[in-house]
Amino acid sequence: MSNEGFVIKCKAAVAWEPNKPLVIEEIEVAPPQANEVRIKIVATGVCHTDLYHLFEGMNKDGFPVVLGHEGAGIIESVGPGVTEFQPGDAVIPLFISQCGDCRFCKSPKTNQAAERYDVMSLEDTRFTCKGKKVLQFLGTSTFSEYTVMNQIAVAKIDPAAPLDKVCLLGCGICTGYGAAVNTAKVCVLDAVGLAAVMGCYVAGAKRIIAVDINPEKFEKAKVFGANEFVNPKDYNKPINEVLFEMTNGGVDYSLECCGNVGVMRSALESCVKGWGVSVIVGWTDMHDFAARPIQLIAGRTWKGSLFGGFKSKDGVPEMVKAYLNKKIKLDEFITHKMTLAQVNDAIELMKHATIVKSL
Amino acid sequence: MSNEGFVIKCKAAVAWEPNKPLVIEEIEVAPPQANEVRIKIVATGVCHTDLYHLFEGMNKDGFPVVLGHEGAGIIESVGPGVTEFQPGDAVIPLFISQCGDCRFCKSPKTNQAAERYDVMSLEDTRFTCKGKKVLQFLGTSTFSEYTVMNQIAVAKIDPAAPLDKVCLLGCGICTGYGAAVNTAKVCVLDAVGLAAVMGCYVAGAKRIIAVDINPEKFEKAKVFGANEFVNPKDYNKPINEVLFEMTNGGVDYSLECCGNVGVMRSALESCVKGWGVSVIVGWTDMHDFAARPIQLIAGRTWKGSLFGGFKSKDGVPEMVKAYLNKKIKLDEFITHKMTLAQVNDAIELMKHATIVKSL
Ligand SMILES: NC(=O)c1ccc[n+]([C@@H]2O[C@H](COP(=O)([O-])OP(=O)(O)OC[C@H]3O[C@@H](n4cnc5c(N)ncnc54)[C@H](O)[C@@H]3O)[C@@H](O)[C@H]2O)c1
Ligand SMILES: NC(=O)c1ccc[n+]([C@@H]2O[C@H](COP(=O)([O-])OP(=O)(O)OC[C@H]3O[C@@H](n4cnc5c(N)ncnc54)[C@H](O)[C@@H]3O)[C@@H](O)[C@H]2O)c1
Ligand SMILES: [Zn+2]
Ligand SMILES: [Zn+2]
Ligand SMILES: [Zn+2]
Ligand SMILES: [Zn+2]
Repeated sequence: MSNEGFVIKCKAAVAWEPNKPLVIEEIEVAPPQANEVRIKIVATGVCHTDLYHLFEGMNKDGFPVVLGHEGAGIIESVGPGVTEFQPGDAVIPLFISQCGDCRFCKSPKTNQAAERYDVMSLEDTRFTCKGKKVLQFLGTSTFSEYTVMNQIAVAKIDPAAPLDKVCLLGCGICTGYGAAVNTAKVCVLDAVGLAAVMGCYVAGAKRIIAVDINPEKFEKAKVFGANEFVNPKDYNKPINEVLFEMTNGGVDYSLECCGNVGVMRSALESCVKGWGVSVIVGWTDMHDFAARPIQLIAGRTWKGSLFGGFKSKDGVPEMVKAYLNKKIKLDEFITHKMTLAQVNDAIELMKHATIVKSL
Repeated sequence: MSNEGFVIKCKAAVAWEPNKPLVIEEIEVAPPQANEVRIKIVATGVCHTDLYHLFEGMNKDGFPVVLGHEGAGIIESVGPGVTEFQPGDAVIPLFISQCGDCRFCKSPKTNQAAERYDVMSLEDTRFTCKGKKVLQFLGTSTFSEYTVMNQIAVAKIDPAAPLDKVCLLGCGICTGYGAAVNTAKVCVLDAVGLAAVMGCYVAGAKRIIAVDINPEKFEKAKVFGANEFVNPKDYNKPINEVLFEMTNGGVDYSLECCGNVGVMRSALESCVKGWGVSVIVGWTDMHDFAARPIQLIAGRTWKGSLFGGFKSKDGVPEMVKAYLNKKIKLDEFITHKMTLAQVNDAIELMKHATIVKSL
């Protein structure tokens, strides 16, 4: 029997308040309204941005919430006016939308949308738990068996794609890979972030320097194409000085992928004067990033990258194809597979930075 | 009788220490050494960077010094190995060099040089006063009747050019104009700085918003092509919010031309998300500029511009031609003409921001 038009009761990991473990609850997921689709989530990754919301941002207005924004699933039902999707379609929820109509969507210069990418407002959420409205993190909420999204934030993908792999294209992999390929237009670079390393490699960078304080990442980085590794903890001078010396004056491109404003500054200062480009990928909204004006006057450029600069609805199906055609790797990112009930274990593993990616 | 090979005694405005008036002194200018030329300075502008060194930077190691870096003159004599210049050539001293051989000079991506642009070291200066070595500010020191420069930092220009006009191409005009034309690649923009306004205009910007706290600049800005004016003092909300509203979401390009890190932040925040580009032109090395990471992650780009991005030896003669062909204005920038003896008056006028440009 179909649930179409009815409320679905299902399991979800609810974050009731900041800095507390998630609780597996039974929630109610309302049917999709006009232009919305309801999705059965088959697999989801855990991204640092989920942890940021829970442990760092800790804005009380953002709770209770169902986290998760790196998922893949199947359309369960569609609301009025939806013609692009049908029950059974394989999809990836998108945390930035692509309406196709606004001046941002129409411009080839950006992947930003006119709409906000944010926790859905209380009016918009389709989740209820114990009589209370529960927010949808970044609109997506993939730590739930079902979610409801506006169709402008859903990408239809090749049905042959393994959902437990391509879910990673919903955030981390597109973000890092695209930041290298789309935003930095890489030649040679210092890369933080495994997907960024892969992007640099695919873009043809000759020298890829991976920088991480976790030496366990180095073997992985090699798999994705890095040929040098630097652990800032091995030096008693600033990492930008180390990179300056290694590269005779600085790198052509640097990507910051850990959400630390100190690292953002080092990444800029690691760039060669004249044409060096530094890209901020890591997410934090609690502190300013900063540098001396001379760093930019000397010819460096500071950019940022959201979702790797991919137009979301267009880009994700293309990346799924690239994976199916073996142009990019995904399997190698996955270190742990867990059930929804184990979500807190996954978060703990990630907090202690001993893993790469758990599903 | 020629002075070639001999020390020249001449007048110069010496800054003996920070934050004090300049003193007109008789100084000794040594003959040019290998690859150097000695230049008779005919006219010089006063730029805010001179004032910055004297009143803001105030680094004791930078004194005593002869300021001035926006001049034009005539070659008096040349040192061994110089074949490009002859006595009598009209020239503009350059505060960034162009050797033509280093990886920076060879790259079309930048106008930076491998060499430092800085106060010449004590060993390099050719100035002595009262038995003491006196530094050459930015290598140029145009507040002197004669100066000595390495030939890689001198541009030969059309002898028909009026030196009391084209001296402005030695810094301010190229800086602002080029920041708009070369660095921002302007379409529509909010511009601070009259030359930046002119650059935007020549580059075809449809809407040019000049922002300045000095309303006297507005009439001038109109002459150079601005069509809107905003005085931050007229509003009781941040200027970026004012510009956001005026432009329905922010400007495509902003140029910061006053050397204030607060204004740098506003200029970035005035840009439209997705593709807005903000260029730092104003010089200060005393404070960090800063913003929230989301500003860049949302698709804005932060750049800087030195000497407007012009390759110095190539660019200046081209700009002189553009002036002679009436493609750019210079005369309109000049508000006061003074003698070297009046240099402190010129500096006072500029400090109080009631003038545009004095020679
Ligand atoms: N811009 C976007 O669209 C976007 C999208 C997704 C994630 N993000 C952000 O990207 C960042 C990375 O996410 P993730 O899921 O890969 O996180 P992660 O925790 O898996 O990886 C972060 C890595 O940074 C390393 N690190 C931490 N401090 C460091 C330092 N001082 N120097 C060098 N390395 C250091 C850690 O060892 C770890 O390997 C986060 O800030 C996340 O919020 C941004
Ligand atoms: N990047 C380079 O290559 C380069 C070269 C030359 C000069 N500069 C720098 O460019 C800047 C401008 O030089 P200048 O000679 O035109 O100086 P200037 O003093 O003639 O002009 C500065 C203008 O900024 C305005 N201003 C000051 N504070 C403001 C505020 N809060 N909001 C809006 N407007 C404000 C002033 O009213 C004035 O009109 C200086 O910082 C100078 O050091 C940089
Ligand atoms: Zn993410
Ligand atoms: Zn849109
Ligand atoms: Zn100047
Ligand atoms: Zn050079």
